[in-house]
Amino acid sequence: MKKDIAQLIVQDLDGVRRLKPLLHHITNFVVMNETANVTLCIGALPVMAHAKEEVEEMVRAAGALILNIGTLTPELIESMTLAGRVANELNIPIILDPVGVGATSLRTESARYLIKSLKIDVIRGNSAEISILAGYGGQIKGVESVGGLDNMLEIVKEFAFKRDCVVAVTGKEDLVSDGRRVALVGNGDPMLSTVTGTGCMATTLIGAFAAVQKDRFLATVGGLVAFGLAGEIAARESGGLPGTFHVALYNSLAHLSSQDILSGCRVQMA
Amino acid sequence: MKKDIAQLIVQDLDGVRRLKPLLHHITNFVVMNETANVTLCIGALPVMAHAKEEVEEMVRAAGALILNIGTLTPELIESMTLAGRVANELNIPIILDPVGVGATSLRTESARYLIKSLKIDVIRGNSAEISILAGYGGQIKGVESVGGLDNMLEIVKEFAFKRDCVVAVTGKEDLVSDGRRVALVGNGDPMLSTVTGTGCMATTLIGAFAAVQKDRFLATVGGLVAFGLAGEIAARESGGLPGTFHVALYNSLAHLSSQDILSGCRVQMA
Amino acid sequence: MKKDIAQLIVQDLDGVRRLKPLLHHITNFVVMNETANVTLCIGALPVMAHAKEEVEEMVRAAGALILNIGTLTPELIESMTLAGRVANELNIPIILDPVGVGATSLRTESARYLIKSLKIDVIRGNSAEISILAGYGGQIKGVESVGGLDNMLEIVKEFAFKRDCVVAVTGKEDLVSDGRRVALVGNGDPMLSTVTGTGCMATTLIGAFAAVQKDRFLATVGGLVAFGLAGEIAARESGGLPGTFHVALYNSLAHLSSQDILSGCRVQMA
Repeated sequence: MKKDIAQLIVQDLDGVRRLKPLLHHITNFVVMNETANVTLCIGALPVMAHAKEEVEEMVRAAGALILNIGTLTPELIESMTLAGRVANELNIPIILDPVGVGATSLRTESARYLIKSLKIDVIRGNSAEISILAGYGGQIKGVESVGGLDNMLEIVKEFAFKRDCVVAVTGKEDLVSDGRRVALVGNGDPMLSTVTGTGCMATTLIGAFAAVQKDRFLATVGGLVAFGLAGEIAARESGGLPGTFHVALYNSLAHLSSQDILSGCRVQMA
Repeated sequence: MKKDIAQLIVQDLDGVRRLKPLLHHITNFVVMNETANVTLCIGALPVMAHAKEEVEEMVRAAGALILNIGTLTPELIESMTLAGRVANELNIPIILDPVGVGATSLRTESARYLIKSLKIDVIRGNSAEISILAGYGGQIKGVESVGGLDNMLEIVKEFAFKRDCVVAVTGKEDLVSDGRRVALVGNGDPMLSTVTGTGCMATTLIGAFAAVQKDRFLATVGGLVAFGLAGEIAARESGGLPGTFHVALYNSLAHLSSQDILSGCRVQMA
Repeated sequence: MKKDIAQLIVQDLDGVRRLKPLLHHITNFVVMNETANVTLCIGALPVMAHAKEEVEEMVRAAGALILNIGTLTPELIESMTLAGRVANELNIPIILDPVGVGATSLRTESARYLIKSLKIDVIRGNSAEISILAGYGGQIKGVESVGGLDNMLEIVKEFAFKRDCVVAVTGKEDLVSDGRRVALVGNGDPMLSTVTGTGCMATTLIGAFAAVQKDRFLATVGGLVAFGLAGEIAARESGGLPGTFHVALYNSLAHLSSQDILSGCRVQMA
């Protein structure tokens, strides 16, 4: 099984690099440059466009639509809704990153509104964001989850089943479920938490894989394995230095090889 | 005295790393990513949130509120005012970075409005920004101070006394005053002026220290010493190369040690 | 001829470093930090200011005004128009980067509106953007030109003649024309396409040169030679790694020498 998944991820990464899907981001102003660069590194093409006057037109060329509420305003939610409706019509996958859900009611309500108004394909957040979205508690400090939850695996599976989408919680270990299947992704490195926006970057990678892999559960696992592996490789070269790690992360994403994936992929089906 | 201050700074840096205060930034779009990363490097947690619909709720969890007018709009001033009022109620320190005051009347008047409407704890700017805010002349080119002022120390002290806050002017040497005490911080390196947003980063560091040190004068000195030292260490490893320096600056902030501070702190009480 | 141009570029780069012109950017949120840093690296001063309440005042101090529609909104077009009118009155050169023209009608129409409403000095884009602006076809995927055009040189020359401005198309080889003269700039490296915003950075460099060189055709050639050479030098040190290249690009811009230009400048007059 693990071998099969690794081989699928290799194929999908090849697909991304060959097809260069356009990833339309409506995202926060903190990580726009970083997620655009991550998109280029993995072999896809980024476009950041958020004006309500153009998002419906822009998304038509996209392989995936990435919605990230990190620096949310009501205007951005309007643009996300407009772009999302077109994406839904055209079966373009939508990946939602509910940054900071639970920190303010604007964020919590906006994320809930997007989930209700649109058919979201994948939701990726930290444990607090997902737990709060799912209707359970959770502690969030700004946009950072603090304190763990024992039953996260159950929460993820149930939430994915209810919303009929893929849900991913990233953290020390990543959990992915589509409501039936559950995967644990062991790839990653603690250095990822020393750089801002690495969660958003993971979401971008899921978008890149979803643009070429119709099984969104496998796409999500693939994106998280690729990103986690790149983080591991970068950490080995960085000596605990966050600035050096940030640079190395782009390098390792751009040079991630089939061999890296086949030998390093750590996925467990629960 | 110098030894005492160095030891206090060591304690406060430990405090930041242990308590991980949330630094709520309402800041400019140029340096959002950079100041978020600096926040992580020093051991605190960043949140960038500027929608008027959420800033009052977000700031409640913050250890400090950082207001930076670098890419100002009237909407941002409204958000800053809303967040600032809540911060004042809850005794959360407010650090103001009046980027580009003097360059346009929008900036000058907005900074004056914020200073009048809110109880600001610390104002940090370059010599032109502070001198103009204090009602004296000053030459600014965009957001850069050009030409020095002989009597800056007196201006800083008087302005701090009048506004009952801490005022810091950063430059070749930093001046800090709360209207009674005056400190000269000798840490820093000319390489800091080769990277955009280093002034904003210094302001973020002041916010981190103010979140754990109630004496805002000492917090300001601490933030500037820590940032200046990190700049010195990064410069030694960068060979005059600004890209390399930028990366090294994050590294040196993250690894700044008690020993670095005790041996490198250059503060003189005037 | 080639020697003469190289010597002119050396003089203009010296001029930029000596005069430190202020480059007022009204630009996209993806590359704000990067273009500010590129501005500092080449020796000029950046200011990013987009509020309609202040752009007319800010631009008065500028040596060049750079308009970039990468994350366009109608509000930004209004600000660009206001700033542009003042720039025109004061003979401050305006450089337009029509990012993503052809991808949405908002972008195409806004770029056309700016070109009609203002006297633009230089337009720099990729082949699709320029070809579409000039009224010919072109394929664009997000903000990336896909597929080449055989007769680009003719399109550029004709478009420059009609609009009475300098037009530059950057790509594998750069084409520059003012409607009479045509230059081919061979400097550059494929690594430049691995980092987001390098087109925007090239536009910033043109702005820096235009601030000191009244012949906008020569200024455009100069900016593109300097940027291309910096890219070549950075690529030699980067081993195909995009994160490393990005850092090295700032380094090589900051340290670009007269000797680099005299020995490496590759300009051909067509």
